[in-house]
Amino acid sequence: MKNRLYFNVNDRQTEDKTALFSAIKEERLHIGYYNLPEQNIEDISAYTQVFDGNIENIVVLGIGGSSLGARAIYEFLKPVKAPTRKLFFFESTDPLNIMDLLSKIDIEKSHFLIISKSGSTVETISIFKYLYAKHQDVSMYTFITDEGSALDKFATQIGSKTFYLPAEVGGRFSVLSVVGLLPLALCGVDITALLKGANKVKESFFNDGYLKESLLNKAMFYAKYHTTYNINCVFAYSETLRYFSEWYVQLWGESLGKKQKNSAFNVGVTPIGLIGPKDQHSFLQLIVEGTRDKSVTFIKIEDFQSELTVPNITLPYLESLDTLNGITFHDLINMQCDSVIEALQLEGDIPLDEIIIERVDEESMGALIYYYELLTSLVGQLINVNTYNQPGVESGKIILKKKLEKNR
Amino acid sequence: MKNRLYFNVNDRQTEDKTALFSAIKEERLHIGYYNLPEQNIEDISAYTQVFDGNIENIVVLGIGGSSLGARAIYEFLKPVKAPTRKLFFFESTDPLNIMDLLSKIDIEKSHFLIISKSGSTVETISIFKYLYAKHQDVSMYTFITDEGSALDKFATQIGSKTFYLPAEVGGRFSVLSVVGLLPLALCGVDITALLKGANKVKESFFNDGYLKESLLNKAMFYAKYHTTYNINCVFAYSETLRYFSEWYVQLWGESLGKKQKNSAFNVGVTPIGLIGPKDQHSFLQLIVEGTRDKSVTFIKIEDFQSELTVPNITLPYLESLDTLNGITFHDLINMQCDSVIEALQLEGDIPLDEIIIERVDEESMGALIYYYELLTSLVGQLINVNTYNQPGVESGKIILKKKLEKNR
Repeated sequence: MKNRLYFNVNDRQTEDKTALFSAIKEERLHIGYYNLPEQNIEDISAYTQVFDGNIENIVVLGIGGSSLGARAIYEFLKPVKAPTRKLFFFESTDPLNIMDLLSKIDIEKSHFLIISKSGSTVETISIFKYLYAKHQDVSMYTFITDEGSALDKFATQIGSKTFYLPAEVGGRFSVLSVVGLLPLALCGVDITALLKGANKVKESFFNDGYLKESLLNKAMFYAKYHTTYNINCVFAYSETLRYFSEWYVQLWGESLGKKQKNSAFNVGVTPIGLIGPKDQHSFLQLIVEGTRDKSVTFIKIEDFQSELTVPNITLPYLESLDTLNGITFHDLINMQCDSVIEALQLEGDIPLDEIIIERVDEESMGALIYYYELLTSLVGQLINVNTYNQPGVESGKIILKKKLEKNR
Repeated sequence: MKNRLYFNVNDRQTEDKTALFSAIKEERLHIGYYNLPEQNIEDISAYTQVFDGNIENIVVLGIGGSSLGARAIYEFLKPVKAPTRKLFFFESTDPLNIMDLLSKIDIEKSHFLIISKSGSTVETISIFKYLYAKHQDVSMYTFITDEGSALDKFATQIGSKTFYLPAEVGGRFSVLSVVGLLPLALCGVDITALLKGANKVKESFFNDGYLKESLLNKAMFYAKYHTTYNINCVFAYSETLRYFSEWYVQLWGESLGKKQKNSAFNVGVTPIGLIGPKDQHSFLQLIVEGTRDKSVTFIKIEDFQSELTVPNITLPYLESLDTLNGITFHDLINMQCDSVIEALQLEGDIPLDEIIIERVDEESMGALIYYYELLTSLVGQLINVNTYNQPGVESGKIILKKKLEKNR
């Protein structure tokens, strides 16, 4: 993984960088996600190895941090490595969506993972009730929740298997815990390689490797100019990264959109996930000519491991497009990305950087995930917010609870 | 369709509203999309009626305005009305995506629609070349392009059927033209009902109906505060609207992200598409506690036409969630939406409004599309940009062209 910054890095900030690095090292002592790359995965591997071979579908009932991470990784890998089981996600109370998903899965050949950190997520429990009323075979279900939650107690009572979230790992930072690893392992994803990729970034950052400077410089720039560049676009040049961008939006938005610790001022940087080249025909115009409120991070894949090539044919009247002849689509898409980067550089006032991941595999994705988790922690530290809570979503939940009680 | 605004509308702007309405009526004389609801669709219907019954897949080669609209409508309707043919979209040069899509379609049972307004879109032509080199049967292809384009001339030469875009209809405003109507009609979508829905909004706006005041007031508010609320979130409470939100992002971003006509200042409002309740567990925290730079439009479906219900069962330790018992998922999701609206209203400084469409059908979607096209035109008029061009994307194309020439 490489990361090239195309904005001005101020060298006079050495002391600030040292302070930031110390703060993160301190945070690492009590925030759980930092150490996930080195976790013991024996439980998950053992469970996966003896898992019923007749099961063809793994169905996750979960929402937000309980689904976005696993989905990002599953969808990333799917085009290059056929999953051993299909992974489905129930993550909406939309009745049309529930019926549509139910029509796609054979219940007899499906196993359900009920994932809720708190154990009382309305969406997840309402759908679980629907299923459980029809299918009370407890071997159909596995639960992932906080130890001691109401859901844990329920699962224990009915005799279903339960996995626990590790301590101090929030939902949106939980993809590299059992929350993401269990569904992925059951679908044939190499979770050891995933963690290895994350660990490489961790080592590079904490042990003075290449990514340390890059991450610190980038975080300091984003934080310093967060009121000017109040939007961060991740422009990923591959359809495989489509769900990664949804995971990034949750991570960034929910972690950094906060009241500041001392002032209670509303701050935050708004995340936008874009996919190239498609969004060259959509959002790009706004980046080039719109308000100067956006930084842009391009993500490229160094090697698509594909020889798919535009054939060497000339079409009458379309001779001007013969320049495409003989080029691999791999080269074409990366050339498209480079062209947009160069075009934006000409504007001169849009902060740009570029992340290059090696290929579409577990290790590359593990690295990318850990890179973004670190970046989020760094920016959160600098803009002085609690990166790991989400108090803003509570009032809507309380209003819903009252409505539901009144409705009875 | 209903639209309720929850922000302060200043009544003293009557003269401004009259001027805005006049400007749009003037624009309507030379911008083509306004009159699409009343177009003659005989050609499309005739073509659809005699279409080969053995064809099971309609495959669109198109990107941006050539794909997003049809996809939004197709995916919206799919869960309630099984399409008569499957619709696929090749809209990326990502080789993994191309191979993945090719593996899903049986070429013998597929018909390809090559859609490019200019006729020289790199993504579309490169994929077409790949297909055409292998399959030179001209009856497999139908072309949609501007009359007289290079692609039109090519199609004529090889003897394939060609449809033309109507005059003065830009790509992102073309969904209700042949660009969207042809693929949709071939998949069994009732395009007459779609246009009827659009026409209702048109009539309501231009003939002093309910939506006129609402659209004018909303546009004036958005334009007046476009530097304060520089982000507009569309928060749609149904998974069926997922691709609608991508269409909206292109329409809004590419139309309004511009240099102002007189000043050449960079302006624009950034579009964000959110889906509820999923994004309550993601982006909502940022709306509630983050920087006050966002307006939010909620979209609700009045009648999901589904009786799917949370069963009346009590789960040990989860008794507190018995408030969900007996509620339809239809009521639950709309109650979730209302709860978030009320929670945001309590904040007091977030501009909110609510659009309610009747149900998941063609007429509702036609109305929603036309509403957004009108809103975009109104805001563009007020912030003084050319809503219908996209000059910002040219420099990247020129750089790519040079790279490709150098590469030969």
